[in-house]
Amino acid sequence: MVKRLLDEIVKKDAPIVVGLDPKLDFVPEYLVKQGIEKHGETLEAAADAILEFNKKIVDATYDLIPAVKPQIAMYEQFGVPGLKAFEETCAYCREKGLVVIGDVKRGDIGSTSGAYATAHLGEIRVGSTKIAPFAEDYATVNPYLGSDGVQPFIDICNMYDKGIFILVKTSNPSSGEFQDQMIGDKTLYQMVADKVNEWGKSSMDGDYSNVGAVVGATYPEMGVELRKRMPHAMILVPGYGAQGGKGKDLLGFFNEDGLGAIVNSSRGIIAAYRNENYVDKFTEQEFADASRAAVLDMKEDLKQALGK
Amino acid sequence: MVKRLLDEIVKKDAPIVVGLDPKLDFVPEYLVKQGIEKHGETLEAAADAILEFNKKIVDATYDLIPAVKPQIAMYEQFGVPGLKAFEETCAYCREKGLVVIGDVKRGDIGSTSGAYATAHLGEIRVGSTKIAPFAEDYATVNPYLGSDGVQPFIDICNMYDKGIFILVKTSNPSSGEFQDQMIGDKTLYQMVADKVNEWGKSSMDGDYSNVGAVVGATYPEMGVELRKRMPHAMILVPGYGAQGGKGKDLLGFFNEDGLGAIVNSSRGIIAAYRNENYVDKFTEQEFADASRAAVLDMKEDLKQALGK
Repeated sequence: MVKRLLDEIVKKDAPIVVGLDPKLDFVPEYLVKQGIEKHGETLEAAADAILEFNKKIVDATYDLIPAVKPQIAMYEQFGVPGLKAFEETCAYCREKGLVVIGDVKRGDIGSTSGAYATAHLGEIRVGSTKIAPFAEDYATVNPYLGSDGVQPFIDICNMYDKGIFILVKTSNPSSGEFQDQMIGDKTLYQMVADKVNEWGKSSMDGDYSNVGAVVGATYPEMGVELRKRMPHAMILVPGYGAQGGKGKDLLGFFNEDGLGAIVNSSRGIIAAYRNENYVDKFTEQEFADASRAAVLDMKEDLKQALGK
Repeated sequence: MVKRLLDEIVKKDAPIVVGLDPKLDFVPEYLVKQGIEKHGETLEAAADAILEFNKKIVDATYDLIPAVKPQIAMYEQFGVPGLKAFEETCAYCREKGLVVIGDVKRGDIGSTSGAYATAHLGEIRVGSTKIAPFAEDYATVNPYLGSDGVQPFIDICNMYDKGIFILVKTSNPSSGEFQDQMIGDKTLYQMVADKVNEWGKSSMDGDYSNVGAVVGATYPEMGVELRKRMPHAMILVPGYGAQGGKGKDLLGFFNEDGLGAIVNSSRGIIAAYRNENYVDKFTEQEFADASRAAVLDMKEDLKQALGK
């Protein structure tokens, strides 16, 4: 799968993933009203609004980007109808040729991780029929439970040509509380990074592994260090834009081939129509055009940062 | 919420939670066939079978037990219909007066953890209507992202009188890979335990806190140590039975008041009809009666262990 992701990045000339995290606050009022007119003040109304919102953003940006990253929590908060919108968002993005990175941060003991891996990346058998429940291409995975919580995901990656990104150093302010603690001569996040290397060996796909890592844009020095430490891991970089990461800080996350990282922006793209840079140029109805403009600006910012 | 959980434990005289983890392998063949007859070989068929399975087990055991713990992965693997069955299982158990512990192991950066907390323990607003999406009473939470990933759950606990169990020392074989590593003079799991104490202070409910901890039955010595280290934390103990934990090993997880822990059994209860102890006494159709017998035996095992 990582080969396909890299091909798409090269083809679109953009190491960019758009985070489809449609908090209801980001969705234009008129779409929420439409949903409520159809379904009343229900979870279905919210799900309808966020799906419509996502589709318009995807329509306006899919030719520019290799991948999307729907954050499942933003759908799960709307219950079963929200998760139906998640499923439909994934399917819509796949139809547009995008790599779908499910930001699900799952992880549990072995057999339970197996069920999560099946849910998001694999197939389940009912009678003699095999069905792919959510059919993402990538999933994010939490490493706290250790190897036997991660292995079932790798097995599914190898069976279905899929990928995972393991949380190594997350973008949030308190990520250091546990992740930065010293264990002997390395930090916990370095120790997890070493495991990413080890786990990744069994799922190589060209020069990179299907086992990648999450490293926050908000910690650029650690990005440099982790880039060297995990030479074959694709790095998913959240935290660009709204969380404070900037293009010029991101050079160190990339390998010398100009590849090896994909930078996520969520709010900065999907709620661009409210951002001071775009609010005067686009109406609320033109929110998707604002998203397109924001993708183009992000692409330029990263190009300059990478010296292209 | 912890007060309500403790009241139920005392009332039922059983520190037992039944893990509703209905892998399709555990569900009697005839229920799966019924589902397929109604819905074809679809996810709906599987969801129908597991919901029916759960209801029968709940009907046969709810008078004996204070709580259930549905493992969401086992539902998520059946996609949206599976998650609908999860929602309906939670609702059915609530109607029967049971405390519902959603074993969801969620955790993310602050705003995203907030969305998960809303999904499982809180309410979301659509227009002027507030809706509880999954409406569990407790959720399990992964601590790898640190305080700002946990705090939104605590805020929701305080708003809606709910509880959480933080993963401290998990029951799986490789849990020590990261959790047992020494950081200065303590292990990572001890460090997380100290944070559980700190976080728990802001959500006390009687002698115990709504912020509890997960400690695996498979590590009884650590149970003793963690019991002392977190005097006000309710401990959720998975790993009894099928994973190898035995009643006699569990005394150390309890405080001197005989409270402070609740022991989970999943496969040992819900698939009891296949277990060598019960297979000769119950037919496949009597699977729920076998579950009742297994609960009664587990209750006895724990009573002897606790010297009651």
